[in-house]
Amino acid sequence: MTTSRDVVGQRSETVRRANLSSIVRELHLRGPLSRSELVARTGLTRSAIRGLIGELVAADLVEERRSEPAGTPGRPSPEVRARGDQTLALALEANVDSLAMALVGLGGTVHRLERVDRPRAHVTVDEIADDLVGLVRPMLGDLRSGDALVGIGVAVAGVVRRSDGIVRHAPNLGWRDAPLGDRLAESLELDVPVWLANEADLGGLAEHRRGAAAGADEVVYVMGEVGVGGNLIAAGRPLVGAAGYGGEVGHMPVNPEGLPCGCGAVGCWETEIGERALLVRAGRDPDGGRAAVSELIGAAGEGEARACAALEHVAAWLGVGLATLINILNPQLVVLGGVFERIHPLVGDAIEAATRRRSLRPSADLVRIVPGQLGVDAPIIGAAELAFEPVLADPAARLRSRVPALASA
Amino acid sequence: MTTSRDVVGQRSETVRRANLSSIVRELHLRGPLSRSELVARTGLTRSAIRGLIGELVAADLVEERRSEPAGTPGRPSPEVRARGDQTLALALEANVDSLAMALVGLGGTVHRLERVDRPRAHVTVDEIADDLVGLVRPMLGDLRSGDALVGIGVAVAGVVRRSDGIVRHAPNLGWRDAPLGDRLAESLELDVPVWLANEADLGGLAEHRRGAAAGADEVVYVMGEVGVGGNLIAAGRPLVGAAGYGGEVGHMPVNPEGLPCGCGAVGCWETEIGERALLVRAGRDPDGGRAAVSELIGAAGEGEARACAALEHVAAWLGVGLATLINILNPQLVVLGGVFERIHPLVGDAIEAATRRRSLRPSADLVRIVPGQLGVDAPIIGAAELAFEPVLADPAARLRSRVPALASA
Repeated sequence: MTTSRDVVGQRSETVRRANLSSIVRELHLRGPLSRSELVARTGLTRSAIRGLIGELVAADLVEERRSEPAGTPGRPSPEVRARGDQTLALALEANVDSLAMALVGLGGTVHRLERVDRPRAHVTVDEIADDLVGLVRPMLGDLRSGDALVGIGVAVAGVVRRSDGIVRHAPNLGWRDAPLGDRLAESLELDVPVWLANEADLGGLAEHRRGAAAGADEVVYVMGEVGVGGNLIAAGRPLVGAAGYGGEVGHMPVNPEGLPCGCGAVGCWETEIGERALLVRAGRDPDGGRAAVSELIGAAGEGEARACAALEHVAAWLGVGLATLINILNPQLVVLGGVFERIHPLVGDAIEAATRRRSLRPSADLVRIVPGQLGVDAPIIGAAELAFEPVLADPAARLRSRVPALASA
Repeated sequence: MTTSRDVVGQRSETVRRANLSSIVRELHLRGPLSRSELVARTGLTRSAIRGLIGELVAADLVEERRSEPAGTPGRPSPEVRARGDQTLALALEANVDSLAMALVGLGGTVHRLERVDRPRAHVTVDEIADDLVGLVRPMLGDLRSGDALVGIGVAVAGVVRRSDGIVRHAPNLGWRDAPLGDRLAESLELDVPVWLANEADLGGLAEHRRGAAAGADEVVYVMGEVGVGGNLIAAGRPLVGAAGYGGEVGHMPVNPEGLPCGCGAVGCWETEIGERALLVRAGRDPDGGRAAVSELIGAAGEGEARACAALEHVAAWLGVGLATLINILNPQLVVLGGVFERIHPLVGDAIEAATRRRSLRPSADLVRIVPGQLGVDAPIIGAAELAFEPVLADPAARLRSRVPALASA
């Protein structure tokens, strides 16, 4: 079913922009395609495709190449591909345990990715911004001199207001209303927009575009790290909510008799399935971080009773929250990221059973629960996607910005 | 942010269809508009609007009339309006307590609405279908002879597979996999499509289009009757999920130590806030139905302690589930329907406080919790909207179907 938002009056500029967008988006997400494949995928005519590709080539967004002869007779048809060398996104990540930066080309090629550990302590937003800039510094000269960078995407372990890049609340970093977006824009001086979003939202976006949920339109992504976050995809689109705060699945109240949560409430899902709950139940250091979790998973694999019991506790409570999400969203796919991706091989069946026990049959019969495919890098890959989004939505804007240069050449 | 679903290649037929759709949709939802208002609302040019209106007038979907002189100088501009007499939807409702039928015109005018009580007993799908046909029978001759009927929408108290109108599970009617859509189509013989959906989904749709949530893009609708259902609107669109089973908020597990639920699980939201929970806590007959709830609300208004305590219990648990929905969906508006609409004047503040206690601040600060505006008729009004949807999405299809008649006239 559709509503009033589906359709608005359309003029020819709008149509041209939409058509350019659909071509660039196909090439970005699916890789090189022949013109015939573009015709089939977009529903546009061959002549329309030809004209639009010409414009995109002139703007350095795509290129055409004869593909390698495949041993079949006849002239090989030219392949259209995104110019991942000429259109770049800078992706950053401010996680509780680590900081990371990546340089990603249109089409998804990761040219460079660096991650450094950080101690789990509350720090100021200026310190985090400085550390992130430090990671990027070796490339800063190159980035400033080129005009290929289209945007900066930032994944943050907190609730982010998307309109202005303010981190409204990041309990594990110790922030409220922290202007991380502005700080990064000032320090980097790269003259391109900086986009921030929650790390789990971006992890889910990455799994949806390039991972376990590719091609699925109804997806629940749940990621466990120190906190528990999520991302919901409905009808192929991320559910971000009125201000971008959506997907905070870690703070669903699941246990009225439960433990106090960092958010100030009691019995949030995070208190039963988060990293801390897992480590405490296994009798391990709750602040041991990723290394302690790896040890725990290893011990459980060797049958250590407390480690196994801790994983089973998490599996049972995962089922309670997943049942909530399945009953209200009727997804076709649940993707487990972060620590849940890592424990899935050990307790996948227990998670499945606990989920089915509390889900409505019609929805339970339809859903598959799978581990993610992108591991720890899902959020930063999603951050690059976030930075590319304006170019994908309106390649014509980039065309326009390049026109003077082309004209004077 | 947008994804690959936002944009597909566009050809001129697609554009024309979208433009016709946006005009009919505006007139259906907003009432009569001048051509200038249509230009402003759709973004189309004046000449495009003129041409498209001509087509819609020829198909009897809209008409143009001079509006009443308003005492201002100059010629009154013609008003375009939906032909609510020429384009009709039949809406039906199979509720636990009652059956209803309505005849609704394009533009939303309810020409006729009848509701009859039914005993709370399990009945076969054939019996319900016969009773609904009996309600429609007095008009059946008129409906068959005209060609104004575009579809039949049916609201059902159960989980509905939208693709084929099968009621997968309706515990309060005693159904599993009941082919209500087919039965109604056979008995009514009206040669128009029959669309089924869950009653709470349709109540939410109605409040979104014509009630408390009109104009809001991020909405959670929760409706309490015998069962508790809901409807979620994100980015202006209903979240129906992979097969239409979404919105089953009544079966969120909220209390691991809770009561068994009709669905087979334990501690579902419905067991704490449904009509039965309310009546039992107030020491009243749990099967007393709507009348018993009315008495209870009256008694609470006069200060009866047990009645007040029961309402406070429901308010507190409403807060738990609403916090879940607010944290994961970041809605701007929560609309309470059914019994929650009726108790809102008494315990609105308690609901608000309980919800805030467990919601993340950024999302809690943004949301408003309000009662519905359409009362008991919300689902049947939504059923009419469901039946109109294909005409709104593609008025050109109706144009095409009318062309032979026009050509031979």
